Amino acid sequence: MSLIQALNWRYATKKMNGKAVSQDKVDQIIKAAHLAPTSSGLQPFKIIVVTNPDLKAKIADLAYGQQQVIDCSHLLIFAAWNQYTEKNIREVFAYANAERGLPSTATADYENTLISSLTAKTAEDNYHHAAKQAYIGFGMAIAEAALLQIDATPMEGFDAGKLDELLNLKALNLRSAVMLTLGYRDENGDWLVNLKKVRSPLTEFVVEY
Amino acid sequence: MSLIQALNWRYATKKMNGKAVSQDKVDQIIKAAHLAPTSSGLQPFKIIVVTNPDLKAKIADLAYGQQQVIDCSHLLIFAAWNQYTEKNIREVFAYANAERGLPSTATADYENTLISSLTAKTAEDNYHHAAKQAYIGFGMAIAEAALLQIDATPMEGFDAGKLDELLNLKALNLRSAVMLTLGYRDENGDWLVNLKKVRSPLTEFVVEY
Repeated sequence: MSLIQALNWRYATKKMNGKAVSQDKVDQIIKAAHLAPTSSGLQPFKIIVVTNPDLKAKIADLAYGQQQVIDCSHLLIFAAWNQYTEKNIREVFAYANAERGLPSTATADYENTLISSLTAKTAEDNYHHAAKQAYIGFGMAIAEAALLQIDATPMEGFDAGKLDELLNLKALNLRSAVMLTLGYRDENGDWLVNLKKVRSPLTEFVVEY
Repeated sequence: MSLIQALNWRYATKKMNGKAVSQDKVDQIIKAAHLAPTSSGLQPFKIIVVTNPDLKAKIADLAYGQQQVIDCSHLLIFAAWNQYTEKNIREVFAYANAERGLPSTATADYENTLISSLTAKTAEDNYHHAAKQAYIGFGMAIAEAALLQIDATPMEGFDAGKLDELLNLKALNLRSAVMLTLGYRDENGDWLVNLKKVRSPLTEFVVEY
């Protein structure tokens, strides 16, 4: 199945049937997000995987009670760095240089420029920038899920502040950005499954120069 | 080729060989971005396709002279809505309801809630929210390019304000968010092509609850 076919097959599943997604498929979905490109290779986000039913129920309460949070087998929370610091930027490059067999100073000039640029911005701007990188990985995860014929529901409708408190994300320098529930559609119980997928006319989506 | 294999194959190409990507492949890459899910189905972004060499050269000047902007055959600029308005939100739902054969009032309550919520936020917050949706499509475009074995360079390093002026994006209620150059790698001329792809340890990327 091509990616285009898979993206036409997928939809924002509102009712899942409770069947669990196998661990190897979850791993592939996470792997796709992990391979996503990010600005300067910073990978300024993590994926929090929730399978505990009690915790899923608490999170559903913070997400307007949306049923797919409860019925999914795996809830992936994409959480972005709260702020860029010299320390967290240096660590990324130190690791990459070591992995590439390069001297630890190989990227010093680039790091210095990046640190000056990013730490001069507000924490809020840092968070938005980091969250945008998380959304690239989020796109990859949705793509891989669709290719594997796993249903996935992208969700922004939740109280991010309360979720961060519940999961103690501040201690990890993280803020929750967006969620993805993984499972299988309940064809008979989902009001959205049979509605036509609608996208804006392609001629309006594209501007040519 | 699986998406995981394709993502391992791809890298942020720094030197392209000038060979043009065929229009049908560019169309598929755009189509993948067009099919990306977005918050409430708003699709609050467009893709600007630049092929004109003079314009690419001007844009390269706004992007620290990065050579791939000149050597690519197609430059895709992902531009997000500048701001949410009642008008642009209503239009999306009017179109979707018509496409689905539903009455124009079918989603009135949902629209009203969404309009209240989004227009209460600052223009800057609106832009960041819209740009995040663009980044999901950006991820899809990168995924599809990799699957087609087209090289693509994700780029945030450009003067977005000046680019918006050059392309007169404000008149379209748009702000440039991120760019993607499409072409083919120059294996002999690219310093990055043979460096190991590095990602953080998967055990650090994933947090399980």
